[in-house]
Amino acid sequence: MYALLYTPDGPQLDADYPLPDVPPGEALIRVSLAGICNTDIEITRGYMGFHGVLGHEFVGIVEQAAEPSWIGQRVVGEINCFCGECATCLRGDVSHCPHRTTLGIAGRDGALAEYTLLPLRNLHAVPPAVSDEQAVFVEPLAAALEVTERVHMRPTEQVVVIGDGKLGLLVAQVLRLTGCALHVVGRHPEKLAHLERQGIDTLLEADVPPEMQADVVVDCTGNAGGFALARRLVRPRGRLVLKSTFHGQNQVNLTALVVDEVALLGSRCGPFAPALRLLARGLVDVEPLIDRTWNLKEGLAALEWASRKGALKVLVRP
Amino acid sequence: MYALLYTPDGPQLDADYPLPDVPPGEALIRVSLAGICNTDIEITRGYMGFHGVLGHEFVGIVEQAAEPSWIGQRVVGEINCFCGECATCLRGDVSHCPHRTTLGIAGRDGALAEYTLLPLRNLHAVPPAVSDEQAVFVEPLAAALEVTERVHMRPTEQVVVIGDGKLGLLVAQVLRLTGCALHVVGRHPEKLAHLERQGIDTLLEADVPPEMQADVVVDCTGNAGGFALARRLVRPRGRLVLKSTFHGQNQVNLTALVVDEVALLGSRCGPFAPALRLLARGLVDVEPLIDRTWNLKEGLAALEWASRKGALKVLVRP
Repeated sequence: MYALLYTPDGPQLDADYPLPDVPPGEALIRVSLAGICNTDIEITRGYMGFHGVLGHEFVGIVEQAAEPSWIGQRVVGEINCFCGECATCLRGDVSHCPHRTTLGIAGRDGALAEYTLLPLRNLHAVPPAVSDEQAVFVEPLAAALEVTERVHMRPTEQVVVIGDGKLGLLVAQVLRLTGCALHVVGRHPEKLAHLERQGIDTLLEADVPPEMQADVVVDCTGNAGGFALARRLVRPRGRLVLKSTFHGQNQVNLTALVVDEVALLGSRCGPFAPALRLLARGLVDVEPLIDRTWNLKEGLAALEWASRKGALKVLVRP
Repeated sequence: MYALLYTPDGPQLDADYPLPDVPPGEALIRVSLAGICNTDIEITRGYMGFHGVLGHEFVGIVEQAAEPSWIGQRVVGEINCFCGECATCLRGDVSHCPHRTTLGIAGRDGALAEYTLLPLRNLHAVPPAVSDEQAVFVEPLAAALEVTERVHMRPTEQVVVIGDGKLGLLVAQVLRLTGCALHVVGRHPEKLAHLERQGIDTLLEADVPPEMQADVVVDCTGNAGGFALARRLVRPRGRLVLKSTFHGQNQVNLTALVVDEVALLGSRCGPFAPALRLLARGLVDVEPLIDRTWNLKEGLAALEWASRKGALKVLVRP
């Protein structure tokens, strides 16, 4: 099958990658549409030391599975494959299972291929009201929902999202639903315009007033400048949610965090079921986030296209 | 001016009620549209021992105020008038100020009249995107938002709202936005159909499966049967939110609450600013909740109409 790989020699498109055998409890899924995430780009720069088939955002059809009820179902899949038996899993934190593999990120081939594998317990059927183009956003939308899953965001609060990249735009759409007073700080007027149309206030980074303060700041930039701005904007006793991974080590003034009693909260993968519900209810608009759709046979070009500064979501169709 | 009163002799329409003087810090508001709440009906049955002008849901235009910038503004107003100086106010709980008066409920004439008074600090300008017919729902919608203000409702949770009355329908619409798995239990198929169209699952009370359990149950019935059902549906360690006031004393098995480690959470008036934001963002649909609009001169008939079992929101136009 065709598969887009990251190898010790760099990204490669393989036309003859072996079709995987299906382990017990897993499903073979024919991929209908996959997305390229910033994490995929980071992997091609050495993040996680991963080699294999890239990609963890997809929608597809189950072709083989021990449970016949799954066959033919249109599905998305949670990317962390957990043991279900350790103390971490038994307290409900399966996405933190120390024995986990992660689709296209750690120890398991990903979804930028004609077929992919996932445990049946990771799958969610996609309701008819949700198109493939919407369903391929379930994984990043779930990551956005992890903010409201972990943190009580009150409707009365002043909230700032920093970053108008793909994840920032999804986080902003989720937080908008809480009723909170929301500002998104970004660098791309055309992306911010999409949020303005949804009744979200936006600001260019250069225009942030020096006195601006928020109860909660969500940093979706993953860069030092974004973190510094987030830190400046969060009020004493406020919460700063980190929504993106950072490259390398960062300088953080921990004393200032103590003095201001600011809570710094990491947040990663999120829940799929509510992401599907928000899409089915028409409450989140993902289609304006699509940058361009490529054929898998042009996978290397798609990867390069997705690496452009300011790229929106690049989709790949096997 | 015309005013709809509750007096020791019962409800009365007064055509010559005196126009109030404007105390310092307050605004005289010409009422454009007012709503009748179940609380108003309860008051006419003796609740709160209140006598005076009824009504606490309104939208209007400021006609007199010491601050000229308010004059001519279209406003809604928070109903609890607080001292701002006591320990309760200074810790931020102004709606619980022990010295408060409450519009049309306690110590202060209400809004079912041609004019009403409120402190300027209680007012919120209504943005142009929100119509009068929407704005008159800000007070009950704020009460619905008090659920997400007080309680962390996670997107992954199973939530049940009991009651398809006016408040239940608003609470359901607010909780739908969190992405949670939501069921509304009611008695009126035509009201539940409105929620179904918004992607909310509904059930008639008689059809609730015996094994059904939820992480959070919100009781919007204010009656013993609703509470008993809510108590049955909430899982061990779950949360039961009480959203309506109850008539008289209720029998509650406190031992069972202890054994099941269930949290019982009261919730009353809520925040206006996020209610206005949800309406301006088009995220809550209140207009299907309008039952009928009456002229203030027919105020007694409007009150009787609103007292019908299953009545939706009755509006009154001065």
